[in-house]
Amino acid sequence: MSEATPSFYPVAGVRLATAAAGIRYRERDDLLLMALEGAVQCAAVFTRNAFRAAPVRIAEDHLAVVTPRYLLINAGNANAGTGKPGLADASAVCTVLGELAGLAPAAVLPFSTGVIGERLPVERITAALPRLLAGLDAGKWPAAARAIMTTDTRPKLVSRRMLVDGRTGTVTGIAKGAGMICPDMATMLAFVATDVAVAPAALRRCLAEAVAGTFNAITVDGDTSTNDACVLAATGALGNREIADPASAGYQVLAEAVTGVCQTLAEAIVRDAEGATKLVTLLVEEASDAREARRVADAIAHSPLVKTALFASDPNWGRILAAVGRAGVERLDIDRVRIWLGDVLIVADGGRAPDYREQAGRAVMATAEIQIRIALGRGRASTRLLTCDLSYDYVRINAEYRT
Amino acid sequence: MSEATPSFYPVAGVRLATAAAGIRYRERDDLLLMALEGAVQCAAVFTRNAFRAAPVRIAEDHLAVVTPRYLLINAGNANAGTGKPGLADASAVCTVLGELAGLAPAAVLPFSTGVIGERLPVERITAALPRLLAGLDAGKWPAAARAIMTTDTRPKLVSRRMLVDGRTGTVTGIAKGAGMICPDMATMLAFVATDVAVAPAALRRCLAEAVAGTFNAITVDGDTSTNDACVLAATGALGNREIADPASAGYQVLAEAVTGVCQTLAEAIVRDAEGATKLVTLLVEEASDAREARRVADAIAHSPLVKTALFASDPNWGRILAAVGRAGVERLDIDRVRIWLGDVLIVADGGRAPDYREQAGRAVMATAEIQIRIALGRGRASTRLLTCDLSYDYVRINAEYRT
Repeated sequence: MSEATPSFYPVAGVRLATAAAGIRYRERDDLLLMALEGAVQCAAVFTRNAFRAAPVRIAEDHLAVVTPRYLLINAGNANAGTGKPGLADASAVCTVLGELAGLAPAAVLPFSTGVIGERLPVERITAALPRLLAGLDAGKWPAAARAIMTTDTRPKLVSRRMLVDGRTGTVTGIAKGAGMICPDMATMLAFVATDVAVAPAALRRCLAEAVAGTFNAITVDGDTSTNDACVLAATGALGNREIADPASAGYQVLAEAVTGVCQTLAEAIVRDAEGATKLVTLLVEEASDAREARRVADAIAHSPLVKTALFASDPNWGRILAAVGRAGVERLDIDRVRIWLGDVLIVADGGRAPDYREQAGRAVMATAEIQIRIALGRGRASTRLLTCDLSYDYVRINAEYRT
Repeated sequence: MSEATPSFYPVAGVRLATAAAGIRYRERDDLLLMALEGAVQCAAVFTRNAFRAAPVRIAEDHLAVVTPRYLLINAGNANAGTGKPGLADASAVCTVLGELAGLAPAAVLPFSTGVIGERLPVERITAALPRLLAGLDAGKWPAAARAIMTTDTRPKLVSRRMLVDGRTGTVTGIAKGAGMICPDMATMLAFVATDVAVAPAALRRCLAEAVAGTFNAITVDGDTSTNDACVLAATGALGNREIADPASAGYQVLAEAVTGVCQTLAEAIVRDAEGATKLVTLLVEEASDAREARRVADAIAHSPLVKTALFASDPNWGRILAAVGRAGVERLDIDRVRIWLGDVLIVADGGRAPDYREQAGRAVMATAEIQIRIALGRGRASTRLLTCDLSYDYVRINAEYRT
């Protein structure tokens, strides 16, 4: 994706506008309005962090009541850890926008990302709403991707097209990530839209399936955000026969496109993680069940020792082995565990693989995209987790930046 | 503790010797021999990492067979991830020492710490054994504390005295830590000795109780080592009536002294953790059970975002709140959660405490020893966990150093 002009397809029924509301940043847009028109259906998944931010709670409530017509997203202030005043602030913004647009407040879903624990500057946001409503445009996806960034260094915008009922449908999405990334049901913020007509249950299923293997299979620092949200909106503007049956060809095509968009966005979040210099794919295979596989992947992905070794391009397989060993797998037979760096077998028979040569491990570690594969020798379950290294810059960014 | 001459009391029945065997380090001692004489009893706890190092497996086997007479500890090579050859190497060292001392190999307990995955230099170690045996001395505790260091910057040596049966007994211990610190039943390496006579069951209990609240209640990076071991040896040289009843006054006095020594050593490990600039005490209170309390403490202690904020002396309570929220406590009522930085209430009613002022939080964060207290409002269980911050130096040390 080129930062200057990311290629994308607009989605019929979706218009966007951005504004510089001065929430935290100077001289950049920090507010995004997405308008959804037509026979809209909308599905969303939210963070499982118990301290869910005020906008997450309001958005979930609103979504249960009425079909959303507007998504309003601000960067720079998370409106999290703000108690009852924070809930009132998130509601107030929806009420003002509803009044301006002649809709119930529940037709607005609010989202926030940025610093935790500060009151949302409601007036600065509401002051910008008239010019946002006046500026809505189907082509503003690149500006939208930029407006929701916090410590992200690159906007994240992905499009796919597919054939549905002989018509060319579109899935386009944006996301922001950077830090506090260990999504649990969804990542920081991602908004995906399609013009395909989809029934509500099929849309929810499509989102859940897409998120499971993409946004929920990445981790930067193990810290699940208070504000995670992922929204999938379908406008139906394509005019196809509504997709309802998950066994239908239409559903399969849509699911593949949505998952593809989510996967590319999720990868972009890890690539642009705070301080990241390496994209690391962890494959855990031959586990007893998926939970066990994920536990092993998490132990490796969250090990500061493994992550600093990755930063140093050091094929320090002892740290990977130690992380597997502490993952809490009961009665793990270490003699059956094999570990590969790329295609190089590094661990077997409870220790360094007999044929392993350090030079081969170094060659793999020198690359910017590294795959680590672990076979546990216990069963048939497997998992895939994307992560990154831990660098000086991660410490610098998080020592300097107030989440 | 002064590095030059840590004050300590020797333990009657324990003699020590150190040597520079050239295992990894140049021009420093890296090998320690501890000899135990008299009516010795010995208890030990070992790592729960599934990839337990060869010496851990051999030591556990030997301990089950016969009373140990020698502990042989090397720094610079962990003999972990070395498969069957590693087991043979650890056994070989015990066999040679047994032959020199006229004892069964099982009377020797081997311990190793250092780089994972390299073969133990058996010949360099066995070559040093004669001069170690010839140099045994009751006063060499400071040299012993230095010989077992890896990335530690300071030796860790602690002594306590107590009255048992009207006689003055001693508990003296050494430990090494630095990185890969998240002990599970014991920490990297700690050796504690007393001259008090104690029955085997009482000694095991005394060690288990001491370790639970000390070595098992610290974490630097969440990475449980493959080589963790903690040994408590009692020589009986004091000539007291053997302590056997955990309800007796003698047991209580001994347990307090042993726990005190372990606590000071555990604190010393966290203070000297790789790159650490702050000592952080986490207190989690009002939990439903101890497991839940520990889960919350772990989530905070292992959050890179909390740890980098601590490094920056930033009272970033939003990150603490987010970590509590992601700890997996079911049906957590966030309105009942309170969080204190030192004595300053920072979170209440689901957000920033009404009276909290940033300046008060900054004053606490500016100190080198910080207490963070979390009350969950759910029950009566509590836990205490010691940890530290995450600094540039942690990344530098672990990017440069091969564990």
